[in-house]
Amino acid sequence: MTPHELDAVDPLARFRERFILPEGVIYLDGNSLGPLPRATVDAVARTVTNEWGEGLIGSWTGAGWVEAPGRIGDKIARLIGAEPGEVVACDSTSVNAFKALAAALSLNPGRATILSERGNFPTDVYMIEGLAALSGGAIQMRLVDPEALEAAIDEDTAAVLVTQVNYKTGRIRDMAETTRIAHAKGAVTIWDLSHSAGSIPVALNEARADLAIGCGYKFLNGGPGAPAWIYVAQRHQGAAHPALTGWFGHARPFDFADEYEPAEGIARFQCGTPAVLGLAALECGVDGLLEADMADLRAKAVALGELFVRAMAPLCEPHGFVLASPADSALRASQISYAHPDAYAIVQALIARGVIGDFRAPDILRFGLTPLTLRHADVARSVEILGEVMERGEWDRAEYRTRKAVT
Amino acid sequence: MTPHELDAVDPLARFRERFILPEGVIYLDGNSLGPLPRATVDAVARTVTNEWGEGLIGSWTGAGWVEAPGRIGDKIARLIGAEPGEVVACDSTSVNAFKALAAALSLNPGRATILSERGNFPTDVYMIEGLAALSGGAIQMRLVDPEALEAAIDEDTAAVLVTQVNYKTGRIRDMAETTRIAHAKGAVTIWDLSHSAGSIPVALNEARADLAIGCGYKFLNGGPGAPAWIYVAQRHQGAAHPALTGWFGHARPFDFADEYEPAEGIARFQCGTPAVLGLAALECGVDGLLEADMADLRAKAVALGELFVRAMAPLCEPHGFVLASPADSALRASQISYAHPDAYAIVQALIARGVIGDFRAPDILRFGLTPLTLRHADVARSVEILGEVMERGEWDRAEYRTRKAVT
Repeated sequence: MTPHELDAVDPLARFRERFILPEGVIYLDGNSLGPLPRATVDAVARTVTNEWGEGLIGSWTGAGWVEAPGRIGDKIARLIGAEPGEVVACDSTSVNAFKALAAALSLNPGRATILSERGNFPTDVYMIEGLAALSGGAIQMRLVDPEALEAAIDEDTAAVLVTQVNYKTGRIRDMAETTRIAHAKGAVTIWDLSHSAGSIPVALNEARADLAIGCGYKFLNGGPGAPAWIYVAQRHQGAAHPALTGWFGHARPFDFADEYEPAEGIARFQCGTPAVLGLAALECGVDGLLEADMADLRAKAVALGELFVRAMAPLCEPHGFVLASPADSALRASQISYAHPDAYAIVQALIARGVIGDFRAPDILRFGLTPLTLRHADVARSVEILGEVMERGEWDRAEYRTRKAVT
Repeated sequence: MTPHELDAVDPLARFRERFILPEGVIYLDGNSLGPLPRATVDAVARTVTNEWGEGLIGSWTGAGWVEAPGRIGDKIARLIGAEPGEVVACDSTSVNAFKALAAALSLNPGRATILSERGNFPTDVYMIEGLAALSGGAIQMRLVDPEALEAAIDEDTAAVLVTQVNYKTGRIRDMAETTRIAHAKGAVTIWDLSHSAGSIPVALNEARADLAIGCGYKFLNGGPGAPAWIYVAQRHQGAAHPALTGWFGHARPFDFADEYEPAEGIARFQCGTPAVLGLAALECGVDGLLEADMADLRAKAVALGELFVRAMAPLCEPHGFVLASPADSALRASQISYAHPDAYAIVQALIARGVIGDFRAPDILRFGLTPLTLRHADVARSVEILGEVMERGEWDRAEYRTRKAVT
């Protein structure tokens, strides 16, 4: 079938019109910042004008602000194979990584090593470094190559902080297998699901995972800097201590007691006052995603990836692109990456042509293939444009060679 | 002069119409959640629709999202006697408290005690407890009565975490004097300015303060759960280590390096990805406040407090109210509190009459007197209504006696 024929029978086709997508743009960056759901415009306006403006302080209870982190957490749980009461939406992924690390240490006293992998999304590694520095040497970080991770887990490993879907390559790590190996050595697993949640089927409880964290602004379409979330398996919730013990994690925050007493369940993993505007947008994004069938999402992501790879094949050797993602679709999430020495300039030239992808240092072109909004025809056209950019040398311009900060 | 005459000559009178305030409500809770500035409605809508919806990922640089935490921090600095580059807007007050505590420990190695006061806003105390628990006994919290704080600072005190304006009573602590005493013993000061910033003149640098944190959703009118902020005196920025070392605090976050390298200056006190929607609302609130003269704000807050106390005087003995704030206006910020055994029920009855104040456990009625939006006539009328509530026994109803969660 042609791309247009595939679009005509796409069971997810109806979702595209629920998003605001600029004219003339093919957005292959929904894995970095998900696009704006139309429903979010009104939801945020309502939160600002009605709930804050009219309801004022009464909206903490009257508009459900207090419950929002848990309510949205329960919705996210459905996307990642967790149960209600195991996820709470709050803080940033980085801050939640710290809570998860501290919780893992509290679940595994007497062990001193936190293991992670080189090339993990950096903030995970940096947060381990911060915790290790704070411990004054009591806790050490150990960083190994991804393929050496499982063999490196030993009797001193308190926790393994690992990403299920690599942010650069889209490679999917086998959650059940890594968890099984970690548990056999008595280590606790912390899964960063920033590029998994809403992108591939995730089965945290089936894999007997311990802790997980993830981002709200990628596949969940929660908006720029949306609140992140944290998962703590129900069996650990009584013993896990988050270290960032803020008043919203207290058993009775409005008693204003001098002594901290952790809330029961996942609520103790909240810290400060919930970010209400961000949560309103996040809830819209998650609600929209929950209307789609995860099997459909996965099938379409695979199809889009295979279409991209097929279309790219004739460009690779002549223009020096090397596939940086797994060739096997089963090992690849909703993105596809190629290495090229001029990756940065090529990404800039593509953006100038309306094809928005990502550069990831040092040499990666990364294309997010978000099945909720992308058509097969968009993917085919984006590779056509990349071909034109290369044939015409459009990327080879001085202004495309100077790197600016991008996310 | 009558309250109406005072309103007629109020230099801040023009600000009231810049806020959306519900009909029939006297809002004495701007110290808990500041009201909605009209400009915020459009600013948030623009951030959602234009910046996120149209600009997508390009808005990180194109719409100034990356710079927002520092840009807004520089604006907040003007309200608290700090310089550009000393404040950054990010995370929650609780999370920033943790960073400030960790930074203080890094500035003061070899000391093991963090001192705070009973009756401090609980999250400050809870965050110290969390850090102490994480340290496995290396760091201890010491909690003393407020009036014993300064005498309790000794050679083992690494940091003193103290609130300038007490959240229950509005009492102002002498920042310069406490800082002087702390420094004489070699201790680092961390000031919680949640109830000070935008409320009273603050002179962090003049007082030689070391670190400070504060809330964005009270007097700064940044919206529910707005990003908070953190101040680190310029002289400490090179040596202070925030412990929560997320990728946005990295020297070059978009290099995605495996090793953490702190950014120069205040930027290292950022952690995860900035909460863009919350920052947009916060910036509006701060911009509005910066148009007012702090001396006018302080003078009006004092006048409103004195008007409230004068109007309350005849109600106190007959109805059992006891002033819980300092009687001396010079020691009182923009709020006034009374103790009463039936405080909770009375606050509920007042809310039913459109006078929105706060209950604070166990027995405090707290009234925020925010000079930007309140008229003298509002304050006079609110005490009249309180008198009616008491005379008529309106508070003495079963449904007002059951406490619900409120903030």
